[in-house]
Amino acid sequence: MIQNWKEKYAKIMKDFEGYSIGKIFKYLGNPEIISLAGGLPSPDMFLKSEMRKASHKLLENDLENIFQYSPVPGEDDFIAAILKFLQRDGIKLEPENILITSSGQHGLDLTGRLFLDPEDYIMIDRPTFAGAIVAFQMQHPQIIGVDMEADGSNVDGYRAKLAKLPVKPKFIYVVPDFQNPSGITTSLEKREALLDLSYEMDIPLVEDSPYRDLRYRGEAIPSLFSLDQQREGTNVIGLYTFSKIFSPGIRVGFNIGPPDVITKMGNIKGGNTLNTPKYNQDMCRIFLTEMNYDSHMEKCRKYYSKKLDTFLEAMSEYFPPETGVSWTKPEGGLFLWVSLPKKIDTLKLFQKAIEYKVAFVPGEVFYGENPENNHLRINFSYVSAEQLVEAVKRLSKCVKEDLREQ
Amino acid sequence: MIQNWKEKYAKIMKDFEGYSIGKIFKYLGNPEIISLAGGLPSPDMFLKSEMRKASHKLLENDLENIFQYSPVPGEDDFIAAILKFLQRDGIKLEPENILITSSGQHGLDLTGRLFLDPEDYIMIDRPTFAGAIVAFQMQHPQIIGVDMEADGSNVDGYRAKLAKLPVKPKFIYVVPDFQNPSGITTSLEKREALLDLSYEMDIPLVEDSPYRDLRYRGEAIPSLFSLDQQREGTNVIGLYTFSKIFSPGIRVGFNIGPPDVITKMGNIKGGNTLNTPKYNQDMCRIFLTEMNYDSHMEKCRKYYSKKLDTFLEAMSEYFPPETGVSWTKPEGGLFLWVSLPKKIDTLKLFQKAIEYKVAFVPGEVFYGENPENNHLRINFSYVSAEQLVEAVKRLSKCVKEDLREQ
Repeated sequence: MIQNWKEKYAKIMKDFEGYSIGKIFKYLGNPEIISLAGGLPSPDMFLKSEMRKASHKLLENDLENIFQYSPVPGEDDFIAAILKFLQRDGIKLEPENILITSSGQHGLDLTGRLFLDPEDYIMIDRPTFAGAIVAFQMQHPQIIGVDMEADGSNVDGYRAKLAKLPVKPKFIYVVPDFQNPSGITTSLEKREALLDLSYEMDIPLVEDSPYRDLRYRGEAIPSLFSLDQQREGTNVIGLYTFSKIFSPGIRVGFNIGPPDVITKMGNIKGGNTLNTPKYNQDMCRIFLTEMNYDSHMEKCRKYYSKKLDTFLEAMSEYFPPETGVSWTKPEGGLFLWVSLPKKIDTLKLFQKAIEYKVAFVPGEVFYGENPENNHLRINFSYVSAEQLVEAVKRLSKCVKEDLREQ
Repeated sequence: MIQNWKEKYAKIMKDFEGYSIGKIFKYLGNPEIISLAGGLPSPDMFLKSEMRKASHKLLENDLENIFQYSPVPGEDDFIAAILKFLQRDGIKLEPENILITSSGQHGLDLTGRLFLDPEDYIMIDRPTFAGAIVAFQMQHPQIIGVDMEADGSNVDGYRAKLAKLPVKPKFIYVVPDFQNPSGITTSLEKREALLDLSYEMDIPLVEDSPYRDLRYRGEAIPSLFSLDQQREGTNVIGLYTFSKIFSPGIRVGFNIGPPDVITKMGNIKGGNTLNTPKYNQDMCRIFLTEMNYDSHMEKCRKYYSKKLDTFLEAMSEYFPPETGVSWTKPEGGLFLWVSLPKKIDTLKLFQKAIEYKVAFVPGEVFYGENPENNHLRINFSYVSAEQLVEAVKRLSKCVKEDLREQ
């Protein structure tokens, strides 16, 4: 019998189409295409010899434990290393405040599953990280977006939209440092204002921090989590990943929060995947404790900062003011956001760009609702400096042609 | 502000307490306790030197790809190796029929998320795999159980309960080979009857096969998936894992099914964890293609079979018929099921057993509803033959004392 599977799907999954960014990667098989589409850290920054050494040592000395089951919440020694790591950033926690996840994406999904029933409200920035939107969408919430400002989340905008909601949102999700996709950093003032709002209206904050240590200029701003701790609050859940500072392929991250939330997320993780593989956790522990974190990060900052400068210079050269094109100037992270004249639809532009052998992510995937269509996301960390300049050149030709045709 | 997080949890997660087996492991810290509680393959069967060699080669030759992002559905060459692996078992598939998962648990959760809305019905054997119950419970279904028989799933029992349901269940979940926890294998006749029922009533089957290649005696019986293919049907989803035959810590498995189901599960995986780490997939690929699978499995079968025999002999010696204790005699797998006189509650017995320095899993966690309390699950694969005998001796003392006290 040929089963009609589709009619058996859960109602909340029937229309779910997954990660829309993933779908554009099929166009990028041609090696002549310079892709600024991915969110990939540069393999130039992989600690290759240290990784090989660490891996070799792990398998020599501890193979039987590494390849056996291990605890769902994570390895004790890894959690201890993370506690120290967070202390440096002004966050004081105990082991019961930490759950090891199998990446930032996993941390987002555990958050969505713990809090969201269908039709619950959540609030996000416009634009915001597409992976968060995808994770939350699986729980079918009502997503309310608030346009970002140049200095971060628009707290007054949140306040105005909150006043019109029939019920309180379950949480507000933000990426305060070098946000993906905009590259925008939320100011200290706005972080404090977000916390004020959170306390006043009794709304938890979910703070996603994948790029926090990748600051190339300016002073570090305390995280929402640490500001909340300073005020003796427990209103923030923090999401972290090793993807951007160590390796995306290792698939390890961690969530921090109150013990009850962490226990509950651990229960969900147990039913979802059981433990994160110990080998992958051990490699990240060694990264934190034995691979000279500070000098590695310093090297990363110099390397990425130079690429960012190259990209920004090329943009100034190829997109003079009369083109009506503007872009953000991030102080860190891996992404920036280009805004084109309103008549350009970047999803259509993407097809043309492929002909010009350059790729980006059309901005519409970064909206939970009512997408704007004239933006695009640029990743400047992966391709070489020469390719960055060539990519901007191709992009400018392509934009000019698109404008001429209209 | 101190957030009252609990009131923010999703309704379907509020009462979810996760993996109940995990909770008993905290009693097992004392190394004098002989634990028959886990589901652990023996590290004696780990291919240590082959694993070291494979890992070394991977990191020497392909580090940059291994530690970068990789495709959500899985690595092409790994999927190709799995296709060949399945062909040996009479299953003919294309790449689009396979999704790499981060373990059997992950495969179960993706299945639950794709099909189950709250209050949907599913049907399972009584007893059945606790991890499946936990995964499905996260979607809050109505679980209908049917008592197993000595030769497997009770198809007439399913038919009788189906007749009384207000709506059709979304699927029937079974573990036909050396079921966890019972050790029971479903006969060919009953597999055909399950398929008949599936076709007749239009109910998909979910077949979980973690132990299929661990057969110690008797002839292999075709899987439901292959029987369905022989009948040109598409009514079965198959779940596989590398945990029991290669390594649980590697956290890799795969789901097989119709392309649309696999695509949809891949979409969910994308929002859940993105890709399974490439290193872990590559290790499993090398296991299938370069580690002499047949001779490894032959070695595993001999090793586990001997342990099973030792355990069964000890049970005959220490639990003569007058004790009213019975147990299954599996033809493979890692588990068997001990049934005690009805007046014994194995959850209470567990506490006493800890005093006697022996541990098992109380049977009640293997029921989706109306648990029976007088059974226990034994894992015979992990501890040594000497410890197995000693464990049975301790268990018999403990049971006798419990009976005396009543």
